[in-house]
Amino acid sequence: MVNFRYKQAQSVNENDFTSFDTLLKKADGYFREKNGLGNDFLGWRDLNVRVDSEEYKRIKACAKRIRENSDVLLVVGIGGSYLGARAVIEYLKTPYHNQLKTGDPEVYFVGNSFSGNELNSVLALCEGKRVSINVISKSGTTTESAVAFRILREYMEKRYGREEAALRIIATTDANRGALLSLAKQEGYECFVIPDDVGGRFSVLTAVGLLPAAVAGIDTDALLNGAVAQREKIFESGINSPVYKYAVLRNIMLSHGKSVEVLVSYDPDFRFMGEWFKQLFGESEGKDKKGLFPASVTYSSDLHSLGQFVQDGSPILFQTICRAATNDADSPVVPFDEENGDGLNFISGMTMDEINEKAMLGTLLAHRDGGTDSVIIDFGGKDAYSLGELIYFFFAACAISGYILEVNPFDQPGVEAYKKNMFTLLGKPGYESGKDELLSEIASI
Amino acid sequence: MVNFRYKQAQSVNENDFTSFDTLLKKADGYFREKNGLGNDFLGWRDLNVRVDSEEYKRIKACAKRIRENSDVLLVVGIGGSYLGARAVIEYLKTPYHNQLKTGDPEVYFVGNSFSGNELNSVLALCEGKRVSINVISKSGTTTESAVAFRILREYMEKRYGREEAALRIIATTDANRGALLSLAKQEGYECFVIPDDVGGRFSVLTAVGLLPAAVAGIDTDALLNGAVAQREKIFESGINSPVYKYAVLRNIMLSHGKSVEVLVSYDPDFRFMGEWFKQLFGESEGKDKKGLFPASVTYSSDLHSLGQFVQDGSPILFQTICRAATNDADSPVVPFDEENGDGLNFISGMTMDEINEKAMLGTLLAHRDGGTDSVIIDFGGKDAYSLGELIYFFFAACAISGYILEVNPFDQPGVEAYKKNMFTLLGKPGYESGKDELLSEIASI
Repeated sequence: MVNFRYKQAQSVNENDFTSFDTLLKKADGYFREKNGLGNDFLGWRDLNVRVDSEEYKRIKACAKRIRENSDVLLVVGIGGSYLGARAVIEYLKTPYHNQLKTGDPEVYFVGNSFSGNELNSVLALCEGKRVSINVISKSGTTTESAVAFRILREYMEKRYGREEAALRIIATTDANRGALLSLAKQEGYECFVIPDDVGGRFSVLTAVGLLPAAVAGIDTDALLNGAVAQREKIFESGINSPVYKYAVLRNIMLSHGKSVEVLVSYDPDFRFMGEWFKQLFGESEGKDKKGLFPASVTYSSDLHSLGQFVQDGSPILFQTICRAATNDADSPVVPFDEENGDGLNFISGMTMDEINEKAMLGTLLAHRDGGTDSVIIDFGGKDAYSLGELIYFFFAACAISGYILEVNPFDQPGVEAYKKNMFTLLGKPGYESGKDELLSEIASI
Repeated sequence: MVNFRYKQAQSVNENDFTSFDTLLKKADGYFREKNGLGNDFLGWRDLNVRVDSEEYKRIKACAKRIRENSDVLLVVGIGGSYLGARAVIEYLKTPYHNQLKTGDPEVYFVGNSFSGNELNSVLALCEGKRVSINVISKSGTTTESAVAFRILREYMEKRYGREEAALRIIATTDANRGALLSLAKQEGYECFVIPDDVGGRFSVLTAVGLLPAAVAGIDTDALLNGAVAQREKIFESGINSPVYKYAVLRNIMLSHGKSVEVLVSYDPDFRFMGEWFKQLFGESEGKDKKGLFPASVTYSSDLHSLGQFVQDGSPILFQTICRAATNDADSPVVPFDEENGDGLNFISGMTMDEINEKAMLGTLLAHRDGGTDSVIIDFGGKDAYSLGELIYFFFAACAISGYILEVNPFDQPGVEAYKKNMFTLLGKPGYESGKDELLSEIASI
């Protein structure tokens, strides 16, 4: 169950919400009727992969096979093709999951940069371990992933021979076309689908996120069921649902002159959920010279880093706190110390998680007193079902918020600009025009 | 050698620089004469730990001993007591250094949050390995670190007995006072000094950062020598030095209405340098309702995340690109593929680092065309000397920039507010007042 609270957002009042009524109703209509901007990318709304689908059964069977025949899964993908899976795995299994010998395969994310150093490190970690690869790309020609995959394919074929390599490479790609699909067919890779109506940043609950998560030992049934439950709640409650409140609040903050939304968690394992959130909202709303700049922090760590700014710096931001309801049963207890040199005996017997909750509450009020508004998204906590609910909450909030902002929340035209220049500089066929101009500009940078 | 270029910052012209002349000269005076706000925290300016100091010799000897008798070093500290060391180690040794069996001890950073889960994970990773601890705290009572250290001290004494535990615990703390110093004296821990005139975020080149870095196998001589060289260059060149240009440019951007500075690297290993940067500038300038909100990204990864926003979103930001001059000799080469299904043969034979450079150049121009300004900080690259230069560059830039902004760059009064509330909620003796009010406020959150 996901809830939304904004009582401590002092700059906001109920009239602010009322003033968005018209836009909100329009946004709600677009979402329900699928007739807004970018409506052909609303496939995620109805979760085209569900626990009873054929595709999902194959995903689970494939994950089971990889868990049996591999010690390492390399996930090759960039943007939405890696952030969601990495976020889910790190939150539910900890960022240390590759080092803790839990019996689950290690999962590494590569092909999301041009760092040769990173690829070398990960290959070094594969030594002596059985490796499978999940290459994730709609087209198969996204340069970062394609470069890494070319190198990794050569590695796999050298190591296993072409035939066994083909059994150890799984392609998640377009159902009908593209370079990766062609290669997969030629080589006989098992394939999963990136649906045409689901953009990268909304794809974590498709094969894109589910296969790596299942390999890592995540309960993907629960993840999907949580999302389905959240979906139903939103459709039931409509514009009174917490997700709509949050979507409107973001736009209220923008209208009050805020330019940055800081996503806050008190759990370091949530860090990559923050990265996922930044893509989801940044790419959906950062267009037409609009949008809140999305940032993320881990408290209380970053209270000793960005906390000063939040408390007393330029008043350009508000905070959205993701608050997990449940504490960890294994949370260490502060021991009693006869000598009490550090003066901590007043909290001896408390768990670290209990202290963490007090830190959250105290900080919320301190920031409020400093003039910085915070709102709270309550969710169940560190289990797959609750995370599924939270993910769907953010999906829907992003759609509604983007519609209220009057942008197309589902395109990303600005991502092409750097690619075009890069291709020209790299000499890609078809991108010759303007090369001289570009080179002369570069000479004077 | 660190350089600064701003030719592609189209919104900036030379008159903008001139308009800051008076403030700049004032700032320069404060820096040289040590007579500005917070001048008693300028200890880092002259690098009170140098390669020829007694303290530094002891740091190296201690690191050597830990490298011989330990497989793992746990660094207990928060904020400036961990960000710098972690940043240096991850950049120079990769974020995978704890997993790659290089022969260097593993180094984990704990006590920087109240996450019991994280502490449990790290303790699980210590199983069967020889452990030492470096606890870093000026007072010894910073709650996050003190809680973790209480738990870890118990762990060490149970595992090694009190006597050997004392040989395996090293305290970096105040020279003359505080709970940690008292305990260290009582138990006989070796101690290193956090100087009185160096704040946490400026402490990476003291024992705070140097001991963990040296244990991880970093060439700390080179790190310090790079910083010393950069220091000398700044004092030689004065207000014509790149560091002053960058400091002024940040204030120009603020005066042009920008509210966010995005630190950009094209190397995923630089990520924690971004975190370190965020504390350095956020805590130094985020006060009196002023300051640029510091963010950081790793490209080209995040071009598929925040790239859309930077290209075409709300025009509230500018970018500072940290560009490493040298490429990695081991950067993988894109193999040739007869079939060329992915269409990448136009870059076959190129290294990933070479492609990365073209991505950087193409992106810079694409963002400029979208109306987003970028400036470039060139530095030597992935070696300790060059990183030392870069660190000192940022230190000095932060001081000058903060003076131009007319704040005290060296205090952090806003960090206390959350602690006060937290202590009241936790029932810390001396913090009783206002508890009822706080509790009633919390009840209505």
